[in-house]
Amino acid sequence: MHPERQEDKGTELITEKRFFTFAEPPEKMVLENGAELGPVTIAYETYGTLSPRRDNAVLIAHAFSGDSHAAGYYTDDTARQKPGWWNSVVGPGKGIDTDKHFVICSNMLGSCMGSTGPSSINPETGKPYGLDFPMVTIGDIVAAQKRLIDHLNISKLLSVVGGSVGGMQVLEWCLRYPQMVRSAVALATTMRHSAMAIAFNEVARQAIMADPNWNRGDYYHANPPTTGLAVARMVGHVTYLSDEAMRRKFGRRLQDRADFSYEVGVDFEVESYLRHQGSKFTRRFDANSLLYITKAADYFDLTNNRGQGGESRSFTAGKTKYLVISYSSDWLYPTYQSRELVQALKRAGRDVSFCEIEADAGHDAFLLPDERLRNILRGFLDGVAEKH
Amino acid sequence: MHPERQEDKGTELITEKRFFTFAEPPEKMVLENGAELGPVTIAYETYGTLSPRRDNAVLIAHAFSGDSHAAGYYTDDTARQKPGWWNSVVGPGKGIDTDKHFVICSNMLGSCMGSTGPSSINPETGKPYGLDFPMVTIGDIVAAQKRLIDHLNISKLLSVVGGSVGGMQVLEWCLRYPQMVRSAVALATTMRHSAMAIAFNEVARQAIMADPNWNRGDYYHANPPTTGLAVARMVGHVTYLSDEAMRRKFGRRLQDRADFSYEVGVDFEVESYLRHQGSKFTRRFDANSLLYITKAADYFDLTNNRGQGGESRSFTAGKTKYLVISYSSDWLYPTYQSRELVQALKRAGRDVSFCEIEADAGHDAFLLPDERLRNILRGFLDGVAEKH
Repeated sequence: MHPERQEDKGTELITEKRFFTFAEPPEKMVLENGAELGPVTIAYETYGTLSPRRDNAVLIAHAFSGDSHAAGYYTDDTARQKPGWWNSVVGPGKGIDTDKHFVICSNMLGSCMGSTGPSSINPETGKPYGLDFPMVTIGDIVAAQKRLIDHLNISKLLSVVGGSVGGMQVLEWCLRYPQMVRSAVALATTMRHSAMAIAFNEVARQAIMADPNWNRGDYYHANPPTTGLAVARMVGHVTYLSDEAMRRKFGRRLQDRADFSYEVGVDFEVESYLRHQGSKFTRRFDANSLLYITKAADYFDLTNNRGQGGESRSFTAGKTKYLVISYSSDWLYPTYQSRELVQALKRAGRDVSFCEIEADAGHDAFLLPDERLRNILRGFLDGVAEKH
Repeated sequence: MHPERQEDKGTELITEKRFFTFAEPPEKMVLENGAELGPVTIAYETYGTLSPRRDNAVLIAHAFSGDSHAAGYYTDDTARQKPGWWNSVVGPGKGIDTDKHFVICSNMLGSCMGSTGPSSINPETGKPYGLDFPMVTIGDIVAAQKRLIDHLNISKLLSVVGGSVGGMQVLEWCLRYPQMVRSAVALATTMRHSAMAIAFNEVARQAIMADPNWNRGDYYHANPPTTGLAVARMVGHVTYLSDEAMRRKFGRRLQDRADFSYEVGVDFEVESYLRHQGSKFTRRFDANSLLYITKAADYFDLTNNRGQGGESRSFTAGKTKYLVISYSSDWLYPTYQSRELVQALKRAGRDVSFCEIEADAGHDAFLLPDERLRNILRGFLDGVAEKH
């Protein structure tokens, strides 16, 4: 009996976080920049049952601040308060149907939700790495996921699916391991991080580094840079929404008051919301992980891998079937960037479907419950499974 | 001889900053929130010559971080290095032609470029106001400008012109003093600050308030919150640009390097640019003024003046002729918001012209040299002057 068996209670998945460790001494993981890292632990969860032919596995790659908890509830979450971040998409009878598919989601290398990252203990010093953690790329994140898939004894993935930074991982999978990827779904993402996306990430990083508690990343023994991290999250949060979404959600409504305060504090609901989001984030995320993962996203560029030099990478190898999805109000990774990706795939002779979903929720739209997304995903994955 | 006589040297204006003080004891300026302030000093500059009939005065209202130095060079700027912020628009033969018009620009109340603001000395304590400075509104800023115009013995302005927060002042002028305003030009602005615009301002404020040096606004005797202010400026700067402008201006070019650094520091030109902009800003602007002026902008709402309550204000009084200009890539105050303003003016029976200028520079476009803007402004102002 494989451990990746999931138990359904009613219509909801019950799940638990598992850990896989590789690159244990004397082995090291060699990163894209040449640095060596080890041991490496990857936190992951699985949902559904792996088929006897091991051909129904779907890997989900999470976005920047996500984790392995893509769906269902943890066993100790008896009140069912914290469903996985994509619970609307992953589950029995849902868009990624756990009655049919064996779904895997792992926390990305460099993060802080169970996988090795800057807050992990550096075996050479016995203390958290901090800035001694080597810079990881989207390629390194995917290479670590590949080790997990090997460990699960899966030689071919039915699909790799992800939005935003998760979508970058999807594309990287197709380039690195084309023979392992039967299909790929890239949502709300881009082939290369734009100057504007880099700019917002840089503002977020500067907010953290401006916090004296950051202390050049060496804060794990002391107070963490929570105020800087909260501001960084607020920056991110605005870019995930849209003008329309914010007008609909908040407008100019005041927060618990009938008139302006005429002070520098909170007046509007949107201010209160952002402060809450910023503060909440500091209780679950590590500031150094934000620095590392935003940098990995900024480095991501399939069209010119190394800034001024390097070759454009092409999707010519393998038989992967592609689905590209964009959202009309996403201004962080706008539809034109998805179209560029579609064009590149077509130029490489790939089988690619493209869909722009009309939605006013901005970049965050791919995380929200949406019947259209559910139907598109189900149809696409069913088609890939049948073609076997 | 009136002091507002300007001397031209060649085709460039030479100017100097002047100061006007009112609300001296026992008088006080009563602000919109009921607080009293005094004395109030307004820094201003003028360009061109006031006509004998005193009917050629154009008032320019500057944007959030601007100052009274709209055009020309200061007498001590012999190297001509720092032209006024709208030197492409204001000058002999330019869009706002100082050969024809007497142009006035004043630093807004609450700022820090010569007019009274949080960094000014509180006469009651002998120390800088800090957060004891009363919150000012766009209405208060305009009321102070009105005192300056009275002082200059001008009873009717040929035009009031401004972009962004300056455009809000233009609209406020038309509502408060319709009989004094023959024409109004509102560029890249809005009738009410949107949730998204408030959100970005709040992130900027939080960046400042997260800096321990901010010390609840009481830092004038010590180190100012420069790191927080720099981050705040970076946030603002990204919103002033556009995806297209940043792609064109920076793309993914690296800053003085051939490959990625694989560190958390600067890799891309756009990062270097933002850091430079942030740092430069701290040398000229006061953090508390940023808090106050962004709050004034956030409070601005002609459609529902007091958040949940209050009456919509209408442009029914006076005979002001309006010109509304938006920029196609401005996502901070998008064209649809200018159209809302045009609709409101039309409903009120006003004479209004509207123009959306195609430009990829984002919100900042109104500050950049542009032949189209020059021609539109010249034509509009000539028409108003002729109708006299």
